[in-house]
Amino acid sequence: MSTTPAPPDSAVRAFIEDHRSAFLSDLTTWLRIPSVSADPEHADDVRRSAEWLAGSLRSTGFPVAEIWETEGAPAVFAEWPSDEPDAPTVLVYGHHDVQPAAVADGWDSDPFEPVERDGRLYARGAADDKGQVFFHTLGVRAHLAATGRTAPAVHLKLLIEGEEESGSPHFPDLVRERADRLACDAVVVSDTGMWDPETPTVCTGMRGLTDCQIDLYGPDQDVHSGSFGGAVPNPANEAARLAAALHDEDHRVTLPGFYDGVVELTDEERALFAELPFDEKAWLRAAHSHAPLGERGHTTLERVWARPTAEVNGIAGGYQGPGGKTIVPSRAQLKLSFRTVAGQEAEKIQETLRTWVADRLPAGIGHEITFWGTTRPCLTPLGHPALQSLVRAMGRSFGKPVRFTREGGSGPAADLQDVLDVPVLFLGISVPSDGWHAPNEKVELSLLMKGVETSAYLWGDLAEHWNGR
Amino acid sequence: MSTTPAPPDSAVRAFIEDHRSAFLSDLTTWLRIPSVSADPEHADDVRRSAEWLAGSLRSTGFPVAEIWETEGAPAVFAEWPSDEPDAPTVLVYGHHDVQPAAVADGWDSDPFEPVERDGRLYARGAADDKGQVFFHTLGVRAHLAATGRTAPAVHLKLLIEGEEESGSPHFPDLVRERADRLACDAVVVSDTGMWDPETPTVCTGMRGLTDCQIDLYGPDQDVHSGSFGGAVPNPANEAARLAAALHDEDHRVTLPGFYDGVVELTDEERALFAELPFDEKAWLRAAHSHAPLGERGHTTLERVWARPTAEVNGIAGGYQGPGGKTIVPSRAQLKLSFRTVAGQEAEKIQETLRTWVADRLPAGIGHEITFWGTTRPCLTPLGHPALQSLVRAMGRSFGKPVRFTREGGSGPAADLQDVLDVPVLFLGISVPSDGWHAPNEKVELSLLMKGVETSAYLWGDLAEHWNGR
Repeated sequence: MSTTPAPPDSAVRAFIEDHRSAFLSDLTTWLRIPSVSADPEHADDVRRSAEWLAGSLRSTGFPVAEIWETEGAPAVFAEWPSDEPDAPTVLVYGHHDVQPAAVADGWDSDPFEPVERDGRLYARGAADDKGQVFFHTLGVRAHLAATGRTAPAVHLKLLIEGEEESGSPHFPDLVRERADRLACDAVVVSDTGMWDPETPTVCTGMRGLTDCQIDLYGPDQDVHSGSFGGAVPNPANEAARLAAALHDEDHRVTLPGFYDGVVELTDEERALFAELPFDEKAWLRAAHSHAPLGERGHTTLERVWARPTAEVNGIAGGYQGPGGKTIVPSRAQLKLSFRTVAGQEAEKIQETLRTWVADRLPAGIGHEITFWGTTRPCLTPLGHPALQSLVRAMGRSFGKPVRFTREGGSGPAADLQDVLDVPVLFLGISVPSDGWHAPNEKVELSLLMKGVETSAYLWGDLAEHWNGR
Repeated sequence: MSTTPAPPDSAVRAFIEDHRSAFLSDLTTWLRIPSVSADPEHADDVRRSAEWLAGSLRSTGFPVAEIWETEGAPAVFAEWPSDEPDAPTVLVYGHHDVQPAAVADGWDSDPFEPVERDGRLYARGAADDKGQVFFHTLGVRAHLAATGRTAPAVHLKLLIEGEEESGSPHFPDLVRERADRLACDAVVVSDTGMWDPETPTVCTGMRGLTDCQIDLYGPDQDVHSGSFGGAVPNPANEAARLAAALHDEDHRVTLPGFYDGVVELTDEERALFAELPFDEKAWLRAAHSHAPLGERGHTTLERVWARPTAEVNGIAGGYQGPGGKTIVPSRAQLKLSFRTVAGQEAEKIQETLRTWVADRLPAGIGHEITFWGTTRPCLTPLGHPALQSLVRAMGRSFGKPVRFTREGGSGPAADLQDVLDVPVLFLGISVPSDGWHAPNEKVELSLLMKGVETSAYLWGDLAEHWNGR
C-alpha cells in the first residue's frame, strides 16, 4: 500500500491553477452565509446557504441540483450521470451548516467575513465543512477539462445536509425516504481530515455507537443511613457495582459475547498504524489527560480507532451538595456508551446488557434501561478496489505515500452505509489544527487545493479500476 | 437479664398520681414555646425555652440551674448534689429545642398548642425531647418524697442543650469547655425510645460515624468519548470501581483491618435481639425498601445496630441531564459514610482509606479525600452495674421484663462519653409511632408517666448497687 504514487496530471494542475482564484472567491461568498443550524434565528441563512450551493452546483454543470426539504433544515442533492452507463455510482456526502461563531468567542476576525492570511483561509465552515464540500466542484471540472469528457467518468451524486452540526436529527429519515434517488455503489464522505499537514491519510472506518441510561430504584425515598444503612440495598452502590463490573483487569469489556465477531486488526493494519508519527504526549495534551489507559495489548491508536469500548458518561445517585449527608439514596443513574467496531451488532449488545444488568442486581433494586440510539460502525477493508482508487488519487495529488487512519467517533456516514448498503470512503484534507467548532477555524489553502486535485483524479481512477461491485 | 421485676413502690406511684395534673400542665406551658433552633426567627423562643426550663428546675428543687451560653442557642445546666458525698454522679442529657412545625405541614391542630386526645399529648416536642427531659423533674421529686430524702441519692446533673435539632454544632465545644462542671460517673440520655408501647427496652449502644468525600480528577475537561474513550482514564469509572470494591460478595467491608478490634455481639446479645418481636415486613416499610440486604451471617437488627458498615451516600460524575452525552467526564465524586461500632478507631479507618484509595487509582487520575467529621460509637456492656440499675428501674415501673436494643444512628451522646470518659445509659420512653420530626408528634401519656416512675426508681437503685466505678 505504500508504493510510489503515480505522477500528477499536468492538465489537471493547470486547470486548477487557472481557476483557483475564482474558486476561492466563490467559496468566500458561500462562507459569508452564517448557516448556523443550531440557532433558529439563522434558519433563513441555512436555507440561503442551501440555495446558494444548489445554484453553484448547477453552474458547475450538474444537470440536477435540488433542495430537499426535511422537518428541519434543507439538504442539497445534486446528480451528474456519467456518459458511460455501466460506470459505478458514487455519492459524495458533506454538510452546508456550520457551528455557531461570534467574534466575542475569541476570533481574530469576523467568522463570517473570510480572511486569507499566511496561506490560510479563516472563516467558520472553512474546513468544517464548506471548504471540503466545495473542493469537489472544481475537482469535477478539472476532471472533465483534463480528460476532455462532457460528463464524469462515474455517475456522480452529492448529498449535502443542513443539520450535521445539530446532530443530523432528520438525516436517517431523509436517507431512508430518498433511498431510490441516493442509490450508489460507494459513498465518499468529505467531512474528515488527515493525520497532519505533512501526512496524507485515508480513514478506513469509524466506530459505531450505542448508548443508554440505566435507572436504579432502591428505597422509595432517601432513608437514614444510621437507621437502615447496611441492611437495605443501596442503588448508588449497585450503580457503582455495575459500572465497575463492565471492565476486567485488562480493561476489556466483560459483557458476555461483547467481542464476538469483532473484525480484528490485521498485522498489516497494526503495522501501518505503528508507522504513523504518533506523539503520545501531544495526543495526551489533546485529550486533556494525564496518562493513557485502555485495553491491554493495544496501542493508544488501536484503542481509539479499532477497539470496541464501554464508557461511563455519567453516574449519579444520592447527595451531591456540599459536606456530607448520611443517607441511603433512593435512586441512582448510569449513562453508558459503547463504541462498536465492524462485526459487532448493537442489538445483541443491548440484549446482553439487559440480561447482564438484571442478573447482577439484588432483590429490592428495581431498574429500567433506556437505549438512546445506535450508530453503526463502518469499515472499508484496505484491499477494497474503491479504497485503493482513493489512495492512488490522493497519493498522486500529494506526491507522497498515503497512510491509513481510522476515526474513533461515530457519524451520519454510517446511516448512508446502512441504508444504501455500500462501502464508505473518507476523502478529507482538514488537519487537527484547523479548529473545528473553535474560534479561528481555518483551512490550509495548499491542502484545500490538494483536495480539489484528489477529487479530480478520483472519478477517473474509480471508473478505470472498479466495476462498482 | 429477664428476671421478674421488683414490685413498684406504692409511695412513688401515689406521689406521681397526685402531681400528674400539675406536671402535665407545666409541660404544656413549656411545649407552647416554639423553640425551633433551625429558624433564626425563633431564637428568642429558644432562649425563652431555656429560661423557662431553668426556672422550672429551680422550682423542682435543683439548687443550681444556669443558662449556659454557646455561640448558638443557650443550653441549661442544673445540679443537685446528693447528701451522700460518696454517691455516684449522674448527668442527664436532653434538649429543649424542637423541629420546625406548622399546621400547613399536615398537623391536625396547632403544633404549639398542646392537645390531649385519647391518652396522648399532641405537640411539637412532646416526645422529642421536652416530654422526656421533663419526666425527670417529677421523677426526682417522687424519688425524694417516697424515700423521705431532702437530696437525691446520687449527685444529679442535667445538661439540656438548645441546638440538637440543628446538628449540635456548638455542643462538643461546650462539653469540652465545661468538662469540669459536667464531670460524672455516667450519662443518662433521655432522647431515645423503646421498641414499642408493649415492650420496654433499654438501648445499650449507638454506632459511630465517620464520613468523607472523595474527589477524582481525570481529563482537565470533559472530552469526546469517540476520540478518546477507551484510551484515557475515566474518573466516573474509577469512582464506581472504588465504591464497588468497598464490599465483598458477603457484603463485608473490604478495607484492610476494618473489623479489627470490633466488639462482637455475644451469644447472649444475639439471643436477646432475636427475642424481640421483629416484623421484617413492617421494618422494610419503615425503611421504604423492598428487600433486606446486608452482611452475611447477621440478622437485619444485628446489621443496623451492631455491625459496622460502609455506605455510598452520593456518587456523581459526568453528564446527568436528559438523554445521552458521549463524553469521558473530567471529574467524579464519591460521598461515603462509615458506621462504626465499639472497638473501631475512626482515625485508623481514615488512614486505611487514604492508602486504599491511592493504591487503587491508575496513573492519570488525581484525587483528594476530605473527611467531614467523626462521631464515636458507644456501647455499655449488658453486665455494667449502672445499666443493670436502669433495667431494674424500668422493669419495676413497667412491671415487665426489659429487653435490649441498640441504636444504628450516631448522636451527641458520644461527645459526652468521649470527653467525660464515662458510660452512657439510654432512658427513653418514646415509641416509633410518636412521629419525631413529623406532623402530629405526640407522646403516649401512660408511657410518659412510666418515664417519671423509672426516673424515680433509678437514682436510689444506682446509689444502692453502684459505686460509680
